[in-house]
Amino acid sequence: MQGVWLENQSLEFRDALALPVPQPNEALIKVLVAGICGTDLQLTKGYYPFNGIPGHEFVGEVIDAPEAPHFIGKRVAGEINNGCGHCALCHCGLSRHCSQRRVLGIKNHNGAFAEYLTLPVTNLHVIPESIDDEKAVFIEPIAAAAHILDQVAIGPHSKVLIIGAGRLGLLIAQVVKTTQCQLQVIARHEKQRQILKQFEITAISEHQLPLGEADVVIEASGSPDGLQAAVNTVKPTGSIVLKSTYTGETRLNFSHIVVNEISLIGSRCGPFQAAIALLQEGRIDPTPLISERFRFHDAKQAFESAAQPGGLKVLLRP
Amino acid sequence: MQGVWLENQSLEFRDALALPVPQPNEALIKVLVAGICGTDLQLTKGYYPFNGIPGHEFVGEVIDAPEAPHFIGKRVAGEINNGCGHCALCHCGLSRHCSQRRVLGIKNHNGAFAEYLTLPVTNLHVIPESIDDEKAVFIEPIAAAAHILDQVAIGPHSKVLIIGAGRLGLLIAQVVKTTQCQLQVIARHEKQRQILKQFEITAISEHQLPLGEADVVIEASGSPDGLQAAVNTVKPTGSIVLKSTYTGETRLNFSHIVVNEISLIGSRCGPFQAAIALLQEGRIDPTPLISERFRFHDAKQAFESAAQPGGLKVLLRP
Repeated sequence: MQGVWLENQSLEFRDALALPVPQPNEALIKVLVAGICGTDLQLTKGYYPFNGIPGHEFVGEVIDAPEAPHFIGKRVAGEINNGCGHCALCHCGLSRHCSQRRVLGIKNHNGAFAEYLTLPVTNLHVIPESIDDEKAVFIEPIAAAAHILDQVAIGPHSKVLIIGAGRLGLLIAQVVKTTQCQLQVIARHEKQRQILKQFEITAISEHQLPLGEADVVIEASGSPDGLQAAVNTVKPTGSIVLKSTYTGETRLNFSHIVVNEISLIGSRCGPFQAAIALLQEGRIDPTPLISERFRFHDAKQAFESAAQPGGLKVLLRP
Repeated sequence: MQGVWLENQSLEFRDALALPVPQPNEALIKVLVAGICGTDLQLTKGYYPFNGIPGHEFVGEVIDAPEAPHFIGKRVAGEINNGCGHCALCHCGLSRHCSQRRVLGIKNHNGAFAEYLTLPVTNLHVIPESIDDEKAVFIEPIAAAAHILDQVAIGPHSKVLIIGAGRLGLLIAQVVKTTQCQLQVIARHEKQRQILKQFEITAISEHQLPLGEADVVIEASGSPDGLQAAVNTVKPTGSIVLKSTYTGETRLNFSHIVVNEISLIGSRCGPFQAAIALLQEGRIDPTPLISERFRFHDAKQAFESAAQPGGLKVLLRP
């Protein structure tokens, strides 16, 4: 099959990749559309030493599912973590944190930037017809955004600041706006500000930060600088939700965290059903985030486009 | 009056300090016993540029309280933060985080290492007769320990690890043990291990850390190294409560926090009434932590004793 191969942080298109073979309880899925995420870009910078087919945001059609034939022909999105199923974390519903987990397109499991992928059928969510492919490809990152609402209390009286208006920050902004909170988003680039205006969300510049006022700050800048901005803008006893992953260590004055009783909350994957509901009810529309579309054989160019400062969602398809 | 003066990080005994004058709604309090805390030691290392009388853990007797004469003659402990009373934080019950706050013995308000101090009467808590002075002097740090139970859910099934068995770590250990959780405490020094044994709490060495297993890790080591140990020992989705304050910045891999969805929770002052109840009900006994007693004129020697590795609670009195 055709697809994209990552090896030693270098990408190339290959047209004779082996078709993946479903393991017990897995489905074979034909990829319809996939999206490039910040983590994919980080993989090309050595964030995690993955060699294989990258890609974990996708919509696809189930071609085969020996143990769950009712899935065949269905259009699905898929949760990306695949735990061992036997450890204490898997047994308490935390298989996404299983130390032996495989992760689609990130760790020990080939991903979505190829014609076919496999996933356990328990990871699959059937996509309602009303959600088209170019919306459905956002289900995984919308779920990651929606997870924030499980982790911190945000309501109409909450002051919320989002640092970063990239491909994840803009989705988080739409999801958080559904709480009717008082929301501001730090946006560096004109295109980001235009999209925020379209979403009726207030954009501010990084030079006009409201210091020590936000009940919740969501750090989605993808850069270590965002953390210090978050610490400066959150109010005492407030919460900072950390969404950015990047290589290396960052310096912080932790006494400030203690004295101001700030909470720093790591946040990764989230609830697919909540994301599907948000799309189905028309409460969010991610399509303004799509900046470009490429075929797999132009993946290098697609990654370069996604890596531009202010780059938004770049889609890939067979 | 006699007392201890801190200037440019240097301590000295003075015998002709000005008697403090109560401001409106303040009481004049005669200090009976005071305790040396890690923060006092940090002040002598430049953690915060305070010049004045240090000390914030005390038990005293109210000598004068013009607006609240029913306090006169009462034995009291006192909350240490004194907010402006007018800002948004003060109005929502967070005066301990008021940006204009004065803090007893730490910021713009002379402290307890002298014969007399002043505090707003609203900061005072009358101490029941059943709690003697050398227990009552621990009310402030026990309250700080009890605050942890307001911030994270700890119950009989929780695995809790405390990093550090110093003067605060040992109080936290006693408070957390009241939840009947599965508790381990990292103790470096033999004296600390003896006290933990007396409290029927499991002591472990820093070389036998249970990696990635604790639901809650409480970092009370007073050292930047404790943070990395906390990150290594907390389980995915677990919480790290940060109690240590120290000068300077610490490096951390924040992607690990995001991927493992760890929460880092800053924790400072706590509920005095909960601390008084714990002492009154005999559920905790801090007196085994008292290592030495000094008079104010030997304060330098007292600070040196408290600063010894493994140093426990050193008391000061007029």
